[in-house]
Amino acid sequence: MDIVRRVHSMRELSRQARVKGQRIGFVPTMGALHDGHAALIRRMSEHADVVVVSVFVNPTQFGPREDLEAYPRDLIGDTDRCIREGADYLFVPGVDDIYPEGPRVWVDVPDLGDRLEGAQRPGHFRGVATVVLKLFHIVQPHATAFGQKDAQQVAVVRRLIEDLMLDIELHVVPTARDPRGLALSSRNRYLSPEQYEAALAIPRALTAARQVVEQGQQKTDDVRAAVRDVLDAEPGLAVDYVELVHPQTLVPVGLIGEHALLLVAVRCGETRLIDNALLVRP
Amino acid sequence: MDIVRRVHSMRELSRQARVKGQRIGFVPTMGALHDGHAALIRRMSEHADVVVVSVFVNPTQFGPREDLEAYPRDLIGDTDRCIREGADYLFVPGVDDIYPEGPRVWVDVPDLGDRLEGAQRPGHFRGVATVVLKLFHIVQPHATAFGQKDAQQVAVVRRLIEDLMLDIELHVVPTARDPRGLALSSRNRYLSPEQYEAALAIPRALTAARQVVEQGQQKTDDVRAAVRDVLDAEPGLAVDYVELVHPQTLVPVGLIGEHALLLVAVRCGETRLIDNALLVRP
Repeated sequence: MDIVRRVHSMRELSRQARVKGQRIGFVPTMGALHDGHAALIRRMSEHADVVVVSVFVNPTQFGPREDLEAYPRDLIGDTDRCIREGADYLFVPGVDDIYPEGPRVWVDVPDLGDRLEGAQRPGHFRGVATVVLKLFHIVQPHATAFGQKDAQQVAVVRRLIEDLMLDIELHVVPTARDPRGLALSSRNRYLSPEQYEAALAIPRALTAARQVVEQGQQKTDDVRAAVRDVLDAEPGLAVDYVELVHPQTLVPVGLIGEHALLLVAVRCGETRLIDNALLVRP
Repeated sequence: MDIVRRVHSMRELSRQARVKGQRIGFVPTMGALHDGHAALIRRMSEHADVVVVSVFVNPTQFGPREDLEAYPRDLIGDTDRCIREGADYLFVPGVDDIYPEGPRVWVDVPDLGDRLEGAQRPGHFRGVATVVLKLFHIVQPHATAFGQKDAQQVAVVRRLIEDLMLDIELHVVPTARDPRGLALSSRNRYLSPEQYEAALAIPRALTAARQVVEQGQQKTDDVRAAVRDVLDAEPGLAVDYVELVHPQTLVPVGLIGEHALLLVAVRCGETRLIDNALLVRP
Protein backbone atom coordinates (compact mmCIF):
# COMPACT_ATOMS: atom_id res chain seq x y z
CA MET A 1 0.00 0.00 0.00
CA ASP A 2 1.25 3.49 -0.87
CA ILE A 3 0.83 6.59 1.25
CA VAL A 4 0.03 9.58 -0.94
CA ARG A 5 0.41 13.11 0.41
CA ARG A 6 0.07 15.40 -2.61
CA VAL A 7 -3.13 16.25 -4.47
CA HIS A 8 -1.45 16.06 -7.88
CA SER A 9 0.02 12.61 -7.09
CA MET A 10 -3.36 11.24 -6.00
CA ARG A 11 -5.00 12.72 -9.09
CA GLU A 12 -2.36 11.10 -11.32
CA LEU A 13 -2.75 7.68 -9.67
CA SER A 14 -6.52 7.86 -10.17
CA ARG A 15 -6.03 8.93 -13.77
CA GLN A 16 -3.77 5.95 -14.40
CA ALA A 17 -6.25 3.55 -12.79
CA ARG A 18 -9.06 4.90 -14.95
CA VAL A 19 -6.99 4.66 -18.13
CA LYS A 20 -6.44 0.96 -17.31
CA GLY A 21 -10.21 0.57 -16.96
CA GLN A 22 -9.98 -0.08 -13.21
CA ARG A 23 -12.84 0.84 -10.91
CA ILE A 24 -11.89 3.13 -8.03
CA GLY A 25 -13.56 2.75 -4.63
CA PHE A 26 -13.14 5.58 -2.14
CA VAL A 27 -13.53 5.79 1.64
CA PRO A 28 -13.14 9.36 2.94
CA THR A 29 -12.41 9.43 6.68
CA MET A 30 -11.09 11.69 9.43
CA GLY A 31 -8.76 8.90 10.58
CA ALA A 32 -8.58 7.17 13.97
CA LEU A 33 -9.87 4.20 12.03
CA HIS A 34 -11.92 1.55 13.81
CA ASP A 35 -13.90 -1.54 12.81
CA GLY A 36 -16.61 0.68 11.29
CA HIS A 37 -14.12 2.14 8.82
CA ALA A 38 -12.75 -1.35 8.21
CA ALA A 39 -16.20 -2.44 7.04
CA LEU A 40 -16.27 0.51 4.60
CA ILE A 41 -12.87 -0.46 3.20
CA ARG A 42 -13.92 -4.08 2.80
CA ARG A 43 -17.13 -3.01 1.06
CA MET A 44 -15.11 -1.00 -1.44
CA SER A 45 -12.70 -3.94 -1.97
CA GLU A 46 -15.70 -6.01 -3.04
CA HIS A 47 -16.90 -3.37 -5.54
CA ALA A 48 -13.71 -1.83 -6.93
CA ASP A 49 -10.29 -2.75 -8.29
CA VAL A 50 -8.45 0.05 -6.54
CA VAL A 51 -9.38 1.18 -3.01
CA VAL A 52 -8.41 4.66 -1.82
CA VAL A 53 -8.80 5.66 1.83
CA SER A 54 -8.34 9.32 2.72
CA VAL A 55 -7.51 10.61 6.19
CA PHE A 56 -8.18 14.32 6.51
CA VAL A 57 -9.38 16.04 9.67
CA ASN A 58 -11.35 18.73 7.89
CA PRO A 59 -11.23 22.05 9.80
CA THR A 60 -14.24 23.55 8.00
CA GLN A 61 -16.67 21.04 9.51
CA PHE A 62 -15.71 21.88 13.09
CA GLY A 63 -17.34 24.76 14.94
CA PRO A 64 -15.22 27.32 16.82
CA ARG A 65 -15.86 25.62 20.18
CA GLU A 66 -15.54 22.06 18.91
CA ASP A 67 -12.78 19.47 19.24
CA LEU A 68 -10.72 20.11 16.08
CA GLU A 69 -7.40 20.28 17.95
CA ALA A 70 -8.29 17.40 20.27
CA TYR A 71 -9.70 15.19 17.50
CA PRO A 72 -7.81 11.87 17.68
CA ARG A 73 -4.99 11.44 15.15
CA ASP A 74 -3.23 8.10 14.73
CA LEU A 75 -1.52 7.83 11.35
CA ILE A 76 0.54 4.76 12.31
CA GLY A 77 -2.52 2.86 13.48
CA ASP A 78 -4.48 4.05 10.44
CA THR A 79 -1.73 2.87 8.08
CA ASP A 80 -1.66 -0.58 9.72
CA ARG A 81 -5.42 -0.79 9.51
CA CYS A 82 -5.52 0.18 5.83
CA ILE A 83 -2.83 -2.39 4.97
CA ARG A 84 -4.69 -5.06 6.91
CA GLU A 85 -7.99 -4.32 5.17
CA GLY A 86 -6.41 -4.33 1.71
CA ALA A 87 -6.54 -0.64 0.75
CA ASP A 88 -4.29 0.31 -2.18
CA TYR A 89 -3.69 3.97 -1.38
CA LEU A 90 -3.87 5.96 1.83
CA PHE A 91 -4.33 9.61 0.82
CA VAL A 92 -3.24 11.95 3.62
CA PRO A 93 -3.30 15.55 2.38
CA GLY A 94 -2.51 18.49 4.63
CA VAL A 95 -4.85 21.40 5.30
CA ASP A 96 -2.78 23.56 2.92
CA ASP A 97 -3.21 20.99 0.16
CA ILE A 98 -6.99 20.94 0.44
CA TYR A 99 -7.46 24.67 1.21
CA PRO A 100 -4.39 26.33 -0.35
CA GLU A 101 -6.16 29.71 -0.36
CA GLY A 102 -8.46 28.99 2.55
CA PRO A 103 -12.08 28.07 1.83
CA ARG A 104 -13.29 30.33 -1.00
CA VAL A 105 -15.94 28.12 -2.59
CA TRP A 106 -18.66 26.46 -0.51
CA VAL A 107 -21.07 23.68 -1.29
CA ASP A 108 -24.27 24.28 0.59
CA VAL A 109 -27.08 21.79 1.19
CA PRO A 110 -29.68 24.06 2.73
CA ASP A 111 -32.61 22.70 4.73
CA LEU A 112 -31.30 19.12 4.88
CA GLY A 113 -27.96 20.40 6.19
CA ASP A 114 -29.56 22.86 8.63
CA ARG A 115 -31.62 20.35 10.62
CA LEU A 116 -30.64 18.24 13.65
CA GLU A 117 -26.83 17.98 13.65
CA GLY A 118 -26.77 21.04 11.40
CA ALA A 119 -28.79 23.02 13.95
CA GLN A 120 -26.50 21.89 16.77
CA ARG A 121 -23.37 22.45 14.66
CA PRO A 122 -23.97 25.42 12.29
CA GLY A 123 -21.86 25.16 9.13
CA HIS A 124 -20.95 21.53 9.83
CA PHE A 125 -22.57 20.03 6.71
CA ARG A 126 -21.42 22.88 4.50
CA GLY A 127 -17.90 21.89 5.56
CA VAL A 128 -18.63 18.20 4.99
CA ALA A 129 -20.20 18.74 1.55
CA THR A 130 -17.39 21.03 0.43
CA VAL A 131 -14.55 18.72 1.46
CA VAL A 132 -16.26 15.56 0.19
CA LEU A 133 -16.76 17.18 -3.22
CA LYS A 134 -13.11 18.29 -3.35
CA LEU A 135 -11.97 14.78 -2.44
CA PHE A 136 -14.29 13.28 -5.06
CA HIS A 137 -12.77 15.58 -7.68
CA ILE A 138 -9.25 14.56 -6.70
CA VAL A 139 -9.82 10.81 -6.30
CA GLN A 140 -12.36 10.45 -9.15
CA PRO A 141 -14.04 7.38 -7.65
CA HIS A 142 -16.61 5.13 -9.30
CA ALA A 143 -17.97 4.17 -5.87
CA THR A 144 -17.78 5.51 -2.34
CA ALA A 145 -18.76 4.10 1.06
CA PHE A 146 -20.19 5.91 4.09
CA GLY A 147 -21.39 4.53 7.40
CA GLN A 148 -25.06 4.56 8.40
CA LYS A 149 -23.89 5.68 11.86
CA ASP A 150 -23.72 9.25 10.51
CA ALA A 151 -27.21 9.13 9.01
CA GLN A 152 -27.51 12.83 8.25
CA GLN A 153 -24.08 12.85 6.62
CA VAL A 154 -25.28 9.97 4.44
CA ALA A 155 -28.38 11.98 3.46
CA VAL A 156 -26.24 15.03 2.65
CA VAL A 157 -23.76 13.02 0.56
CA ARG A 158 -26.61 11.25 -1.24
CA ARG A 159 -28.12 14.62 -2.14
CA LEU A 160 -24.72 15.96 -3.18
CA ILE A 161 -24.23 13.06 -5.57
CA GLU A 162 -27.78 13.19 -6.93
CA ASP A 163 -28.20 16.92 -7.29
CA LEU A 164 -24.72 17.75 -8.56
CA MET A 165 -25.06 14.78 -10.94
CA LEU A 166 -21.91 13.05 -9.87
CA ASP A 167 -21.34 9.69 -11.53
CA ILE A 168 -20.57 7.92 -8.24
CA GLU A 169 -22.20 4.86 -6.67
CA LEU A 170 -22.98 5.45 -2.98
CA HIS A 171 -22.68 2.48 -0.61
CA VAL A 172 -24.21 2.91 2.83
CA VAL A 173 -22.75 0.38 5.25
CA PRO A 174 -24.58 -0.66 8.45
CA THR A 175 -23.36 0.81 11.72
CA ALA A 176 -20.60 -1.25 13.35
CA ARG A 177 -21.17 -1.85 17.07
CA ASP A 178 -19.04 -3.13 19.91
CA PRO A 179 -20.07 -6.37 21.69
CA ARG A 180 -22.30 -4.44 24.09
CA GLY A 181 -24.06 -2.55 21.27
CA LEU A 182 -22.45 0.91 21.37
CA ALA A 183 -22.00 2.32 17.87
CA LEU A 184 -18.30 2.59 17.03
CA SER A 185 -17.01 6.15 16.85
CA SER A 186 -13.56 7.70 16.95
CA ARG A 187 -14.88 9.82 19.81
CA ASN A 188 -15.67 6.76 22.00
CA ARG A 189 -12.05 6.79 23.16
CA TYR A 190 -12.85 9.97 25.11
CA LEU A 191 -15.26 8.04 27.37
CA SER A 192 -14.27 7.06 30.92
CA PRO A 193 -15.39 3.56 32.04
CA GLU A 194 -18.33 5.15 33.90
CA GLN A 195 -19.29 7.24 30.86
CA TYR A 196 -19.06 4.15 28.67
CA GLU A 197 -21.58 2.38 30.91
CA ALA A 198 -23.88 5.42 30.71
CA ALA A 199 -23.55 5.53 26.90
CA LEU A 200 -24.92 1.98 26.66
CA ALA A 201 -28.34 3.51 27.35
CA ILE A 202 -28.27 4.69 23.70
CA PRO A 203 -28.44 1.22 22.08
CA ARG A 204 -30.93 0.20 24.80
CA ALA A 205 -33.12 3.16 23.80
CA LEU A 206 -32.98 2.18 20.12
CA THR A 207 -34.02 -1.37 21.07
CA ALA A 208 -36.91 0.03 23.13
CA ALA A 209 -38.07 2.01 20.09
CA ARG A 210 -37.94 -1.08 17.87
CA GLN A 211 -39.99 -2.99 20.43
CA VAL A 212 -42.81 -0.43 20.71
CA VAL A 213 -43.01 -0.19 16.91
CA GLU A 214 -43.11 -3.99 16.62
CA GLN A 215 -45.95 -3.94 19.15
CA GLY A 216 -47.89 -1.76 16.71
CA GLN A 217 -47.14 1.76 17.95
CA GLN A 218 -47.49 4.17 15.00
CA LYS A 219 -47.36 7.58 16.67
CA THR A 220 -43.87 8.99 16.64
CA ASP A 221 -44.58 11.06 19.79
CA ASP A 222 -45.14 7.85 21.72
CA VAL A 223 -42.06 6.18 20.23
CA ARG A 224 -40.02 9.22 21.13
CA ALA A 225 -41.37 9.10 24.70
CA ALA A 226 -40.22 5.46 25.00
CA VAL A 227 -36.74 6.48 23.85
CA ARG A 228 -36.60 9.46 26.21
CA ASP A 229 -37.65 7.24 29.12
CA VAL A 230 -34.58 5.06 28.65
CA LEU A 231 -32.17 7.96 28.05
CA ASP A 232 -33.53 10.18 30.85
CA ALA A 233 -33.19 7.28 33.31
CA GLU A 234 -29.41 7.48 32.81
CA PRO A 235 -28.05 10.44 34.84
CA GLY A 236 -24.74 10.34 32.95
CA LEU A 237 -26.43 11.41 29.68
CA ALA A 238 -27.91 14.75 28.54
CA VAL A 239 -30.19 14.46 25.52
CA ASP A 240 -29.59 16.87 22.62
CA TYR A 241 -32.42 15.53 20.49
CA VAL A 242 -34.56 12.48 19.79
CA GLU A 243 -36.31 12.77 16.41
CA LEU A 244 -38.24 10.56 14.05
CA VAL A 245 -37.81 11.67 10.46
CA HIS A 246 -38.14 10.69 6.83
CA PRO A 247 -34.96 8.76 5.99
CA GLN A 248 -34.02 10.86 2.94
CA THR A 249 -35.33 14.36 3.64
CA LEU A 250 -34.93 14.16 7.45
CA VAL A 251 -38.24 16.02 7.79
CA PRO A 252 -39.98 15.06 11.08
CA VAL A 253 -42.91 12.68 10.67
CA GLY A 254 -45.98 12.31 12.90
CA LEU A 255 -46.63 8.65 12.10
CA ILE A 256 -44.17 5.86 11.32
CA GLY A 257 -45.79 5.05 7.96
CA GLU A 258 -43.76 2.42 6.05
CA HIS A 259 -40.67 3.33 8.02
CA ALA A 260 -39.06 6.21 9.87
CA LEU A 261 -35.53 7.02 10.89
CA LEU A 262 -34.96 7.47 14.63
CA LEU A 263 -32.10 9.87 15.31
CA VAL A 264 -30.57 10.30 18.75
CA ALA A 265 -27.90 12.74 19.93
CA VAL A 266 -26.68 12.89 23.53
CA ARG A 267 -23.87 14.41 25.50
CA CYS A 268 -21.91 12.16 27.80
CA GLY A 269 -19.63 14.45 29.80
CA GLU A 270 -17.76 16.49 27.16
CA THR A 271 -18.36 13.88 24.48
CA ARG A 272 -21.20 14.11 21.99
CA LEU A 273 -22.53 10.78 20.69
CA ILE A 274 -25.05 10.11 17.91
CA ASP A 275 -26.82 6.97 16.84
CA ASN A 276 -29.84 5.99 14.78
CA ALA A 277 -32.15 3.16 13.81
CA LEU A 278 -34.47 2.63 10.88
CA LEU A 279 -37.86 1.69 12.33
CA VAL A 280 -39.99 -0.39 9.97
CA ARG A 281 -43.72 -0.97 10.37
CA PRO A 282 -44.22 -4.67 11.26
CA MET B 1 -23.58 16.43 -35.16
CA ASP B 2 -25.95 14.85 -32.66
CA ILE B 3 -28.46 16.69 -30.51
CA VAL B 4 -28.54 15.18 -27.01
CA ARG B 5 -31.43 15.93 -24.69
CA ARG B 6 -31.05 13.52 -21.78
CA VAL B 7 -28.49 13.76 -18.98
CA HIS B 8 -27.81 10.01 -18.98
CA SER B 9 -27.24 10.00 -22.75
CA MET B 10 -24.76 12.87 -22.54
CA ARG B 11 -22.99 11.17 -19.65
CA GLU B 12 -22.75 7.91 -21.62
CA LEU B 13 -21.37 9.66 -24.72
CA SER B 14 -18.70 11.36 -22.59
CA ARG B 15 -17.88 8.08 -20.90
CA GLN B 16 -17.40 6.41 -24.29
CA ALA B 17 -15.18 9.24 -25.51
CA ARG B 18 -13.01 9.00 -22.41
CA VAL B 19 -12.70 5.21 -22.71
CA LYS B 20 -11.39 5.76 -26.26
CA GLY B 21 -8.82 8.19 -24.85
CA GLN B 22 -10.45 11.18 -26.57
CA ARG B 23 -10.17 14.66 -25.07
CA ILE B 24 -13.51 16.39 -24.49
CA GLY B 25 -13.85 20.16 -24.96
CA PHE B 26 -16.94 21.84 -23.56
CA VAL B 27 -18.64 25.16 -24.30
CA PRO B 28 -21.55 25.84 -21.92
CA THR B 29 -23.92 28.51 -23.29
CA MET B 30 -27.40 29.92 -22.86
CA GLY B 31 -27.96 29.68 -26.64
CA ALA B 32 -28.76 32.45 -29.14
CA LEU B 33 -25.26 31.70 -30.38
CA HIS B 34 -23.28 34.46 -32.09
CA ASP B 35 -19.72 34.90 -33.37
CA GLY B 36 -18.43 35.09 -29.79
CA HIS B 37 -19.71 31.58 -29.07
CA ALA B 38 -18.34 30.45 -32.44
CA ALA B 39 -14.86 31.50 -31.32
CA LEU B 40 -15.29 29.40 -28.15
CA ILE B 41 -16.32 26.37 -30.20
CA ARG B 42 -13.39 26.80 -32.57
CA ARG B 43 -10.99 27.13 -29.63
CA MET B 44 -12.25 23.83 -28.23
CA SER B 45 -11.94 22.17 -31.67
CA GLU B 46 -8.25 23.08 -31.60
CA HIS B 47 -7.73 21.57 -28.13
CA ALA B 48 -10.03 18.56 -28.00
CA ASP B 49 -11.12 15.53 -30.02
CA VAL B 50 -14.79 15.82 -29.13
CA VAL B 51 -16.53 19.20 -28.76
CA VAL B 52 -19.72 19.47 -26.72
CA VAL B 53 -21.81 22.66 -26.76
CA SER B 54 -24.61 22.95 -24.22
CA VAL B 55 -27.58 25.29 -24.56
CA PHE B 56 -29.39 25.75 -21.27
CA VAL B 57 -31.12 28.95 -20.17
CA ASN B 58 -30.45 28.48 -16.48
CA PRO B 59 -33.32 29.83 -14.36
CA THR B 60 -31.29 29.97 -11.13
CA GLN B 61 -28.99 32.71 -12.44
CA PHE B 62 -31.86 35.08 -13.26
CA GLY B 63 -33.30 37.37 -10.61
CA PRO B 64 -37.07 37.63 -10.08
CA ARG B 65 -37.32 40.84 -12.13
CA GLU B 66 -34.92 39.78 -14.88
CA ASP B 67 -35.44 38.61 -18.45
CA LEU B 68 -35.64 34.79 -18.01
CA GLU B 69 -38.86 34.47 -20.01
CA ALA B 70 -37.78 36.99 -22.63
CA TYR B 71 -34.24 35.63 -22.97
CA PRO B 72 -33.72 34.86 -26.69
CA ARG B 73 -34.11 31.21 -27.68
CA ASP B 74 -33.20 30.00 -31.17
CA LEU B 75 -32.54 26.27 -31.27
CA ILE B 76 -32.65 26.04 -35.08
CA GLY B 77 -30.11 28.82 -35.50
CA ASP B 78 -27.99 27.37 -32.67
CA THR B 79 -28.00 23.93 -34.31
CA ASP B 80 -26.89 25.39 -37.64
CA ARG B 81 -24.17 27.36 -35.94
CA CYS B 82 -22.85 24.33 -34.03
CA ILE B 83 -22.77 22.22 -37.20
CA ARG B 84 -20.98 25.01 -39.06
CA GLU B 85 -18.34 25.40 -36.34
CA GLY B 86 -17.70 21.67 -36.10
CA ALA B 87 -19.22 20.76 -32.74
CA ASP B 88 -19.82 17.04 -32.19
CA TYR B 89 -22.68 17.20 -29.70
CA LEU B 90 -25.26 19.85 -28.90
CA PHE B 91 -26.52 19.12 -25.39
CA VAL B 92 -29.93 20.69 -24.78
CA PRO B 93 -31.33 19.52 -21.44
CA GLY B 94 -34.62 20.80 -20.05
CA VAL B 95 -35.02 22.55 -16.71
CA ASP B 96 -36.46 19.32 -15.26
CA ASP B 97 -33.38 17.41 -16.36
CA ILE B 98 -30.96 19.78 -14.62
CA TYR B 99 -33.13 20.50 -11.57
CA PRO B 100 -35.37 17.40 -11.25
CA GLU B 101 -36.08 18.23 -7.59
CA GLY B 102 -35.56 21.98 -7.88
CA PRO B 103 -32.28 23.48 -6.70
CA ARG B 104 -31.38 21.72 -3.43
CA VAL B 105 -27.58 22.01 -3.48
CA TRP B 106 -25.85 25.32 -4.13
CA VAL B 107 -22.29 26.18 -5.02
CA ASP B 108 -21.42 29.51 -3.49
CA VAL B 109 -18.44 31.71 -4.36
CA PRO B 110 -18.73 34.34 -1.66
CA ASP B 111 -17.00 37.71 -1.94
CA LEU B 112 -15.93 37.26 -5.58
CA GLY B 113 -19.50 36.39 -6.51
CA ASP B 114 -21.02 39.18 -4.42
CA ARG B 115 -19.22 42.11 -6.05
CA LEU B 116 -20.15 44.15 -9.16
CA GLU B 117 -22.55 42.00 -11.22
CA GLY B 118 -23.22 39.99 -8.06
CA ALA B 119 -24.22 43.14 -6.18
CA GLN B 120 -26.49 44.22 -9.06
CA ARG B 121 -27.85 40.70 -9.50
CA PRO B 122 -27.97 38.93 -6.09
CA GLY B 123 -27.70 35.16 -6.42
CA HIS B 124 -26.58 35.39 -10.06
CA PHE B 125 -23.15 33.80 -9.60
CA ARG B 126 -24.43 31.20 -7.17
CA GLY B 127 -26.73 30.11 -10.02
CA VAL B 128 -23.89 30.23 -12.54
CA ALA B 129 -21.46 28.26 -10.34
CA THR B 130 -24.09 25.64 -9.51
CA VAL B 131 -25.18 24.98 -13.08
CA VAL B 132 -21.64 25.06 -14.49
CA LEU B 133 -20.55 22.46 -11.93
CA LYS B 134 -23.55 20.23 -12.75
CA LEU B 135 -22.77 20.50 -16.46
CA PHE B 136 -19.09 19.73 -15.80
CA HIS B 137 -20.12 16.60 -13.90
CA ILE B 138 -22.37 15.46 -16.74
CA VAL B 139 -20.07 16.29 -19.68
CA GLN B 140 -16.78 15.40 -17.91
CA PRO B 141 -14.67 17.72 -20.06
CA HIS B 142 -10.88 17.92 -20.17
CA ALA B 143 -11.10 21.55 -21.29
CA THR B 144 -13.71 24.29 -21.30
CA ALA B 145 -13.93 27.72 -22.96
CA PHE B 146 -15.49 30.93 -21.64
CA GLY B 147 -15.52 34.41 -23.16
CA GLN B 148 -13.58 37.31 -21.62
CA LYS B 149 -16.69 39.43 -22.26
CA ASP B 150 -18.15 38.08 -19.02
CA ALA B 151 -15.03 38.81 -16.98
CA GLN B 152 -16.55 38.18 -13.58
CA GLN B 153 -18.04 34.90 -14.76
CA VAL B 154 -14.54 33.92 -15.92
CA ALA B 155 -13.15 34.77 -12.47
CA VAL B 156 -15.90 32.75 -10.77
CA VAL B 157 -15.38 29.71 -13.03
CA ARG B 158 -11.61 29.93 -12.57
CA ARG B 159 -12.06 29.88 -8.81
CA LEU B 160 -14.60 27.05 -9.06
CA ILE B 161 -12.11 24.92 -11.00
CA GLU B 162 -9.14 25.80 -8.77
CA ASP B 163 -10.81 25.58 -5.38
CA LEU B 164 -12.96 22.54 -6.05
CA MET B 165 -9.90 20.88 -7.62
CA LEU B 166 -11.55 20.08 -10.90
CA ASP B 167 -9.21 18.55 -13.47
CA ILE B 168 -10.34 20.90 -16.25
CA GLU B 169 -8.28 23.27 -18.42
CA LEU B 170 -9.91 26.71 -18.63
CA HIS B 171 -9.57 28.63 -21.90
CA VAL B 172 -10.49 32.30 -21.81
CA VAL B 173 -11.23 33.59 -25.29
CA PRO B 174 -10.98 37.32 -26.19
CA THR B 175 -14.23 39.25 -26.51
CA ALA B 176 -15.68 39.13 -30.02
CA ARG B 177 -16.80 42.53 -31.31
CA ASP B 178 -18.88 43.72 -34.23
CA PRO B 179 -17.24 45.93 -36.92
CA ARG B 180 -18.02 49.06 -34.91
CA GLY B 181 -16.54 47.65 -31.71
CA LEU B 182 -19.60 46.67 -29.67
CA ALA B 183 -18.98 43.46 -27.70
CA LEU B 184 -21.19 40.68 -29.04
CA SER B 185 -23.97 39.62 -26.68
CA SER B 186 -27.18 37.69 -27.12
CA ARG B 187 -28.89 40.69 -25.56
CA ASN B 188 -27.71 43.08 -28.32
CA ARG B 189 -30.69 41.98 -30.38
CA TYR B 190 -32.92 43.90 -27.95
CA LEU B 191 -31.34 47.21 -29.01
CA SER B 192 -33.18 49.61 -31.31
CA PRO B 193 -31.01 51.35 -33.98
CA GLU B 194 -30.86 54.46 -31.76
CA GLN B 195 -29.92 52.40 -28.71
CA TYR B 196 -27.27 50.62 -30.75
CA GLU B 197 -25.67 53.98 -31.62
CA ALA B 198 -25.76 54.97 -27.95
CA ALA B 199 -24.18 51.62 -26.92
CA LEU B 200 -21.15 52.38 -29.10
CA ALA B 201 -20.07 54.80 -26.38
CA ILE B 202 -19.00 51.71 -24.39
CA PRO B 203 -16.14 50.63 -26.70
CA ARG B 204 -15.25 54.33 -27.11
CA ALA B 205 -14.97 54.61 -23.32
CA LEU B 206 -12.70 51.53 -23.14
CA THR B 207 -10.48 53.07 -25.82
CA ALA B 208 -10.34 56.34 -23.87
CA ALA B 209 -9.21 54.40 -20.79
CA ARG B 210 -6.46 52.64 -22.74
CA GLN B 211 -5.27 55.99 -24.06
CA VAL B 212 -4.98 57.71 -20.67
CA VAL B 213 -3.14 54.67 -19.29
CA GLU B 214 -0.78 54.68 -22.29
CA GLN B 215 -0.15 58.36 -21.59
CA GLY B 216 1.10 57.33 -18.14
CA GLN B 217 -1.97 57.80 -15.95
CA GLN B 218 -1.68 55.45 -12.95
CA LYS B 219 -4.51 56.61 -10.69
CA THR B 220 -7.60 54.54 -11.21
CA ASP B 221 -9.84 57.43 -10.07
CA ASP B 222 -8.60 59.48 -13.02
CA VAL B 223 -8.96 56.57 -15.44
CA ARG B 224 -12.49 56.05 -14.19
CA ALA B 225 -13.26 59.74 -14.68
CA ALA B 226 -12.12 59.49 -18.30
CA VAL B 227 -14.45 56.53 -18.83
CA ARG B 228 -17.38 58.26 -17.13
CA ASP B 229 -16.84 61.36 -19.29
CA VAL B 230 -17.44 59.33 -22.44
CA LEU B 231 -20.37 57.35 -21.05
CA ASP B 232 -22.10 60.31 -19.38
CA ALA B 233 -21.89 62.29 -22.64
CA GLU B 234 -24.26 59.73 -24.17
CA PRO B 235 -27.81 60.51 -22.97
CA GLY B 236 -29.05 57.07 -24.10
CA LEU B 237 -26.94 55.30 -21.45
CA ALA B 238 -27.29 55.04 -17.66
CA VAL B 239 -24.13 53.83 -15.92
CA ASP B 240 -24.47 51.01 -13.38
CA TYR B 241 -20.80 50.92 -12.51
CA VAL B 242 -17.31 51.69 -13.77
CA GLU B 243 -14.64 49.89 -11.71
CA LEU B 244 -10.94 49.15 -11.89
CA VAL B 245 -10.13 45.89 -10.16
CA HIS B 246 -7.57 43.14 -9.74
CA PRO B 247 -8.19 40.73 -12.66
CA GLN B 248 -8.51 37.59 -10.50
CA THR B 249 -9.96 38.75 -7.18
CA LEU B 250 -11.97 41.67 -8.64
CA VAL B 251 -11.00 43.74 -5.59
CA PRO B 252 -10.90 47.48 -6.48
CA VAL B 253 -7.39 48.91 -6.92
CA GLY B 254 -6.25 52.50 -6.39
CA LEU B 255 -3.36 52.38 -8.84
CA ILE B 256 -3.04 50.49 -12.13
CA GLY B 257 0.15 48.66 -11.05
CA GLU B 258 1.19 46.05 -13.63
CA HIS B 259 -2.32 45.89 -14.95
CA ALA B 260 -5.93 46.36 -13.88
CA LEU B 261 -9.23 45.17 -15.22
CA LEU B 262 -11.68 47.89 -16.21
CA LEU B 263 -15.28 46.73 -15.83
CA VAL B 264 -18.22 48.67 -17.21
CA ALA B 265 -21.95 48.01 -16.84
CA VAL B 266 -24.60 50.29 -18.34
CA ARG B 267 -28.28 50.25 -19.01
CA CYS B 268 -29.46 51.14 -22.48
CA GLY B 269 -33.22 51.40 -22.28
CA GLU B 270 -34.33 48.08 -20.77
CA THR B 271 -31.16 46.31 -21.84
CA ARG B 272 -28.19 45.86 -19.56
CA LEU B 273 -24.79 45.71 -21.28
CA ILE B 274 -21.38 44.87 -19.81
CA ASP B 275 -17.90 45.13 -21.25
CA ASN B 276 -14.33 45.18 -19.96
CA ALA B 277 -10.73 45.81 -20.90
CA LEU B 278 -7.45 44.74 -19.35
CA LEU B 279 -5.38 47.90 -18.91
CA VAL B 280 -1.63 47.27 -18.92
CA ARG B 281 0.98 49.74 -17.71
CA PRO B 282 2.99 50.93 -20.74
